Amino acid sequence: MPFAATILTLYPEMFPGPLGISLAGRALREGSWSLDAVQIRDFATDKHRSVDDTPAGGGAGMVLRADVLAAAVDSVADDRPVLAMSPRGRPLTQERVRQLSAGPGVTILCGRFEGFDERLFEARDIEPVSIGDYVLSGGEIGAFVLLDACIRLLPGVMGAASSGDDESFETGLLEYPQYTRPVEWEGRAIPEVLRSGDHAKIAAWRKSMAERDTRLRRPDLWERHEGARVQSPSGARRKD
Amino acid sequence: MPFAATILTLYPEMFPGPLGISLAGRALREGSWSLDAVQIRDFATDKHRSVDDTPAGGGAGMVLRADVLAAAVDSVADDRPVLAMSPRGRPLTQERVRQLSAGPGVTILCGRFEGFDERLFEARDIEPVSIGDYVLSGGEIGAFVLLDACIRLLPGVMGAASSGDDESFETGLLEYPQYTRPVEWEGRAIPEVLRSGDHAKIAAWRKSMAERDTRLRRPDLWERHEGARVQSPSGARRKD
Repeated sequence: MPFAATILTLYPEMFPGPLGISLAGRALREGSWSLDAVQIRDFATDKHRSVDDTPAGGGAGMVLRADVLAAAVDSVADDRPVLAMSPRGRPLTQERVRQLSAGPGVTILCGRFEGFDERLFEARDIEPVSIGDYVLSGGEIGAFVLLDACIRLLPGVMGAASSGDDESFETGLLEYPQYTRPVEWEGRAIPEVLRSGDHAKIAAWRKSMAERDTRLRRPDLWERHEGARVQSPSGARRKD
Repeated sequence: MPFAATILTLYPEMFPGPLGISLAGRALREGSWSLDAVQIRDFATDKHRSVDDTPAGGGAGMVLRADVLAAAVDSVADDRPVLAMSPRGRPLTQERVRQLSAGPGVTILCGRFEGFDERLFEARDIEPVSIGDYVLSGGEIGAFVLLDACIRLLPGVMGAASSGDDESFETGLLEYPQYTRPVEWEGRAIPEVLRSGDHAKIAAWRKSMAERDTRLRRPDLWERHEGARVQSPSGARRKD
């Protein structure tokens, strides 16, 4: 069974969009994953097909109705996890992406306006997910992010099987800096060690660069990485 | 002058994509922002139009060449900041989004494969930006994220002028939970206080809910928020 993605959205015409092109697009055409974009408005019950209403207690904007959204979610009830893109959600990590890509697929609920009626999350098993600490006009672009991250990890989608292991976040560190030809450019040479042919020295240099850059650029990641090492002397990454 | 976005990409056909629909699409048609997608391959200098080569020191995948990418960046030299989407970059924040949306626009460099030759960042003034701690197949979806976040803040793009002030991250906290009609749904009622009509009580409840949810869901944000309060007794948000 290929990885199955169902998107609940007010803008089904946005899909597949960028996911129909390049790596994800080829994988879609080859059947490595499937995509179904469902119009939330089809689950409205009044003649105006309303999906939203004004916020209880006042305030700007509109809130998506729990009853309509729950009906949309219930319509795709199966063994796939249901995620809702929301800035109030748990930050997406590469670890969660790996878990999802190893499963049967996802159903993704895309918010708009001021978000969802909170009762939806009390009444249904829905995982709110945030792609980062900024606000978007809707969940659709977050759904692209989540799906693209998952799809590239599906079997056969990335060219080289080994691609991925050294990448940023896979080891809890940023990836080391990369270089390629020309050997010299604008007076700047590729670091000597990378041209040495000494694989052990290259691996050691890359590790030290990954550590240096993580420490300097992402003290938050570095702290977690060091914490994990203390917790687990074998060097294995802590699962949390 | 409207906000001007130039995208340097190997997939110009991905644009405007989702940004041509809904809020951002209407704003594009109304001239609130402009978009130019430029093919990086047009700056290659060999007959195969190569943009990448194998990583120095070995390893899977391909690395984008500094000389070709620099030529693409140089072709759009103006007063707009140049951002490169990269998991090795500084995490995007709502504060950076606000700064960018108040400026003349952005040039966004979209990576693919194993990323950019590091010398590009030494030789040109390019800001590497990460949208989150996960890996995508390329920078294009990151560019959608960055642009969507900026565009919704442009003057006249969001319906209600007040929309935005209470949102997640604008105060350093997650947004409070929202509710809307029906008042009762599946035995769950909208919290009493939101139906009281007492604006002071509603504001106090929302503040306490935003604080509770941030503390429980995002201890990292909460810690920064509390740190900012200690640093700045006026209650103003620390700029850092």
